[in-house]
This record gives sequence, structure tokens and C-alpha cells, in this order.
Amino acid sequence: MEFLKSITPNAALDIISEFPLTPVMETVDVNNALDMVLAEDIVSVEDIPPFSRSLVDGFAVKAKDTYGAKETSPLFLTVNGRIEIGTETDILLNEGYCAGISTGAMIPDGSDGVVMEENVRRLPDAIEVTKTVHRGENICFKGEDIAKGNIVLKKRKKLSPFDLGILSALGIEKIDVFKNPEIAVISSGDEIVAINETPPPGKIRDINRYTVSNLLKKEGFDVTFTGIAKDSITEITEKLMSAKKYDTILISGGSSKGEHDYITDAIEKLGGKILFHGVNIKPGKPTIFGELWGKPVFGLPGHPISCIMATIRFVIPLLQRLKGQEREEKRGIKGLLTTNIPSSYGIEEYIRVSVKTINGAHYATPIFAKSSVISSLAHAWGYIVISESMEGLEKDEEVEVYSF
Amino acid sequence: MEFLKSITPNAALDIISEFPLTPVMETVDVNNALDMVLAEDIVSVEDIPPFSRSLVDGFAVKAKDTYGAKETSPLFLTVNGRIEIGTETDILLNEGYCAGISTGAMIPDGSDGVVMEENVRRLPDAIEVTKTVHRGENICFKGEDIAKGNIVLKKRKKLSPFDLGILSALGIEKIDVFKNPEIAVISSGDEIVAINETPPPGKIRDINRYTVSNLLKKEGFDVTFTGIAKDSITEITEKLMSAKKYDTILISGGSSKGEHDYITDAIEKLGGKILFHGVNIKPGKPTIFGELWGKPVFGLPGHPISCIMATIRFVIPLLQRLKGQEREEKRGIKGLLTTNIPSSYGIEEYIRVSVKTINGAHYATPIFAKSSVISSLAHAWGYIVISESMEGLEKDEEVEVYSF
Repeated sequence: MEFLKSITPNAALDIISEFPLTPVMETVDVNNALDMVLAEDIVSVEDIPPFSRSLVDGFAVKAKDTYGAKETSPLFLTVNGRIEIGTETDILLNEGYCAGISTGAMIPDGSDGVVMEENVRRLPDAIEVTKTVHRGENICFKGEDIAKGNIVLKKRKKLSPFDLGILSALGIEKIDVFKNPEIAVISSGDEIVAINETPPPGKIRDINRYTVSNLLKKEGFDVTFTGIAKDSITEITEKLMSAKKYDTILISGGSSKGEHDYITDAIEKLGGKILFHGVNIKPGKPTIFGELWGKPVFGLPGHPISCIMATIRFVIPLLQRLKGQEREEKRGIKGLLTTNIPSSYGIEEYIRVSVKTINGAHYATPIFAKSSVISSLAHAWGYIVISESMEGLEKDEEVEVYSF
Repeated sequence: MEFLKSITPNAALDIISEFPLTPVMETVDVNNALDMVLAEDIVSVEDIPPFSRSLVDGFAVKAKDTYGAKETSPLFLTVNGRIEIGTETDILLNEGYCAGISTGAMIPDGSDGVVMEENVRRLPDAIEVTKTVHRGENICFKGEDIAKGNIVLKKRKKLSPFDLGILSALGIEKIDVFKNPEIAVISSGDEIVAINETPPPGKIRDINRYTVSNLLKKEGFDVTFTGIAKDSITEITEKLMSAKKYDTILISGGSSKGEHDYITDAIEKLGGKILFHGVNIKPGKPTIFGELWGKPVFGLPGHPISCIMATIRFVIPLLQRLKGQEREEKRGIKGLLTTNIPSSYGIEEYIRVSVKTINGAHYATPIFAKSSVISSLAHAWGYIVISESMEGLEKDEEVEVYSF
């Protein structure tokens, strides 16, 4: 019997990041583009705003006409009309004049500042300005937001609500994005029954289907569950073949290289190739990554927590690449450990933690539970990573906590 | 003309949190329950796992039979059969015996530990154990994950991928959750045209529709855009009435209490009540909150950034309550400011920042731009909050950065 030849997590990530992937393009409406990844640079063909606008309600002025104005020594300006929002104006402001203006309305020619309503005393056909206005004050200038010809959003950017606001400002309704990968999820194991079955003695219900599918759904991927395979090369081969049309296949269970280990065999029998089998992480060691029909395939550990951590650590980064997305920096909050944590040298360990925040400081308490114990995650806010070069962490140490 | 009587952000949040809301229940399938909020405590009616299981491939043993076992002085055990995964076993383990076992298979009576494959040398019908096994080692005991009769998930919990795994372990397919609120989004302003129109001079395209809708979609709410209203009491009244069936109405624009301010008037004319108008925050000051037909209604500032910050600060907390969700603690990463930031005493300010991570340290750089400048958000990773009791922050100060 052959044991796992494990590699380091970084070596595994290198293999994953070198897997040849060609994201596919499609055109979508901006209404359906949240969290999609841009397949093109977006270049502005207009100035935004298309005209200089007032940021406040008040009076458009020549700034220098207000220099020195104070509550105790106001300056006098004659009112030359009023500019309504949403309309064009042909007012040309001369020295000593001003024009009433609403928030968002067009700044008239000759004006370079707006005095706020609050800093004005009204007289018939005139105003007293009680505060100096600086040049450019309370104006959003033509092109100040987005200048014509500029790249405003870059290819490979995952579109946020704000990015969609930028596209709408520019009047861009259709955009080229990368197609969302379609992922098949398979569960395997002689002991696994579906959620609606009562497990006979020796069997348990499928958990990984729900955790993995929903982790990926939360990241915006399209996931289809294609069924449970028994621990037999025939059933696993069949399930893999029935998932051939998907962009990536994930099969959980049966990957610990015990006597029952048909996943690597099935992948190879179908003409695929195993790229790694076993990573020096805990939990999650018996993770398999391979190529089948030119597409990535993962064999995920059967224990629920191991399966989840392998999904977070390896599957999601690959799928983000397949979706065309630029690499995302993972950023954690700083937490203080409430207790010591032992760990093994040479293995990268993931420790689930709960977090309490007291007076702005975050306290992280490890949840020690076996990798099969799914309930341990109900109260876990996130996890910490203990690198393979360490043999544990100490109470009161500051750690980076990554939210789930 | 009446000016805004602003209140503090905490007073605003108090008013919002006291608004009487009655979340509605519905029953959903666990497949469609991600991010829904539990309307019931989930009590386990089973032990999970339903039997004690092996966590590894190896041999089930009596732990005390292995005490003292070492590579150099192995202990000898006779093999009494093998337990396959997914099957029931009637093996009763006696002293001096062991049984072959796969990961996940049922622990036989009489066994209280499993020796891993790696720590065994095989002989015909027997093994040599080369490492001591402790009591309970490599076993997940019956009920160790979830004990029968325990509350495993509490009412008001927003369901994570892990929670769905817990429900599937228990065989719970249908659950009572709170109905997702349906929200109407309206844009208002004489200057606003739709994305597919070329704005004539003095007009601009609608931005808030896209930013607000997608911020709420990202939080999992159902959002419907119900159109653009001109700055007239008639049109705003009509738009509000056409959105009567929604659980909450958001109307952006026209809330700065200038000469054109029809939102509060329209709400009152329809029999509603203004609960606050104006909050001491920047950007976002002219936010309106009220009650109309017994439901919450928000008037959001017209400037895109102000509108976004008011949505994040006030709308989302209200909608989370309306969805039945327990209050979520917002946790930020620690960043070092790369530059001074001035701020005004008495006003809570939100500063957009970009973040760079160098050797694990996060550096936050403020993006100084007017509240109308939507492009400023393309590169913002998050924002920091400067409390009303401060007059600014200094370079190199550590700040809490909240991700967008």
C-alpha cells in the first residue's frame, strides 16, 4: 500500500496557479453584472459630470467678489436670475453679480464658486454674502469625476456595486465579462446517504454537498450537485463522466488513500492526470488535484471540516482564476489569542476561532474539535493559519483572523 | 426657509432600531436557505454521528492493549475481521484483538481507539502496533458532533454554508426562516435620466439606482427599481404610492431641504411621518427616515457617495432587522494611515481609503474626493470612521478599516 506523498501548500498553490485556464467571454447587461469579472478595460467616452455642477443650494458667484466677506462685513451682490436643476443656462455672470442655483444645477459661465444658502442674507434682487468663497468651492467640475479617454475600470476587476454606478454614469449598459464557471459537485462514499433518507446503521447523511456548494454559491459561482457515488471505480467513473460538461468537477470523500480509494484511479482511467495528492495541511491533507478532459478536477477530503478548508484554500483560488479574476489579497482582523495553541512543525494548520470584541479589541478563542465535527463551525467567526515553520502559538499573541 | 435640524448618528440609529418591525415567516428548502435568517431554534432529534466512527484507516483496538508500543518494541494483536465503511458490525473486540477499519466506519463494541495504518506492521492474521494509542484516539464518538436534544442553531441566525451542513447532517430539509424583505428603490430629480438616454445639457444619468440596488443585493435583499420621479410633489407621491406593496421604500435625491424638497412633503401628504431629517455625518447628512403605511421609508441624499454611506450606515441595519437577523458586529482590519486627515468636530466622517499590504502590515491611504465623485470608489477597499468627538487623525495612526 502506497502512502500519500504530501507537498507543501505553497507548492500545491503553484501547481494550481499554473494550470492552463482560458476564461470564456460573454456580454451581460449591467443589471446582471454584480460580482462578474470585466473582460475588457472600460474607457470613458464622456466627461462625468458632463458640465460643472453645484454641490449645494445657494448662489453661483465669482469667488473673488466674495473675498473678505464676513458675518460682520458682508458683501453685496446683485442677483441675475436663477438656475434650475436639470436645465441648461445661458447666464453669463459679470463682476458684482450672482445667480441662484440648486444642488446639482449647471454652473453659469463666469462663475467659479458657489456660496451656500446658509451664508447669505436675502435682499430684494440682491444678496449679502457673509462668508468668503474660495475658487472652485462647492463645484464639481466638468470631467472631475471621470475624464473622457481615461480607463476607469480595468479588465479582470470583479464588479462591485460602485463599479456598476460608474458604468451607469457613463451610460454603458452592456459589458463584456468572463463567463461564470459551472461547477459539478459530487459526494462519494459507501456510508453516505441523501438528506431525505434515514441512515441505516453504519451510514450518515451527506454534509459536504451542502457546505461546499454553498461556499461556492456565496462566492458567486454556479454550482450543480450531480449525485452521490458509492466507493467503486465504476460508480465514480460514471459520476465523473456525467459531469464532463462542467468547467470544474469537485468530488468529496474517499481521497485518503486507504484501501478504498478509487478517485485517483478513476481520473487516470478516464485519461486524466493527478497533479498532486496530499498537502501538508491540517485539516485537509488528503486533497487531490488533477486534470481531466483538459479541465481541473479536485478530490476533496471526506471529513467535513477538511473538505471545507481544502475548498477555501485551493478550490476557490482556482475558480477565481477560471472566472478571470485578478488575485485577491486576503485580509484578516487582528485578534488576541485567549489560549495557547499547539501545532505540528512542517504542517500548515487551520484553527477555527470564535471572536469576541471588547472595547474595540478582538479576542480569538480556538475551537478545538475533530475535523469531522461540523457543529464546531456554527460558532466559528473565522480561522487562523499557523505556518508550517511554527510549533504553536501562545496566549495573548496577536494573530490574523480570516473571516469565513 | 427651514434648515436641517440634524441629529447624531447614534440618535438616528436608536430611532431606526426602535421602529416597530414584524418579520414575516416562511418555510424554505435547505437548498435555498443560504443567507436566510432562522425563525426557529433548531433542536437536534438525533445524535450526530449516529454511531462512533473511525477518523482514519487502520485497526480498531483496545487502547490499553497498545500502551508502551514503540517502533523498537511493537505490541502484537490478532486481527478479528475487518469493518467496511457504510456497514453495521457485530464484532465484539476482546483483549489482544483488533479489527481492520476504514475511515468513517463503525467502531466495534469493546474498542476505544484506532491505530493508524502508518503505525502498524502487517503479519498474517495479526499486526504489530508500533505506537501507543490513547483512549478515544482517532474516534469521533456517537453524539460528539451534535448531541440529541441540543439546540444546534438559534433563531435569528443568518444561515452560513456551515449551518446548512449542520441541517443536512440532521436530515432537516425544510426550515422556517424570515421572509426576505422586498425593497423598492426610486430615484428622484429633474436632472436625472435613465442609463440608456443621452443626457441633454444640465442633466446626468442615474447612478444611485445601481449603487444602492447592488449594495442591497450583495446583502441578499430583494430589490426592485420602480422608476425615476421628477422633482414635483405629484410625481414623488405617485412613485411612493406605486411602491406601496414593498416592505421598505428608498428614494434617493432631493432630500437636501433646498427649495426643491418634495420628499418629506410627499410622505406627510400620504399620511406618513418624518422621524428624522438630517444626521451629523459627512457625507450623508441630508438623510431622511420616516414611516409610511406602517413601513419604513428612507429619503437618501442625491450625491452618489452620500447616498452609499447612508445606505451602509442606516438602511442596511434596518433591513437586517426586518429580515429578523441578530445584530452583526462590524469588524475592520487594522491599518496605518499614510497621511493626516482633517475632520470637523461634531460630525462623524467617513473617509474612503485604499489599502496596501506590505509584509503583513496594512497601509490605509485616504481618497479625498467630493461626495459626488463616484469614480473615487473604484479603488477604495473600504472606509474609516472618524468619530464626532475628534478633529482629525494623524499620519501613522492605527485605524480600523471596514471593507466595502
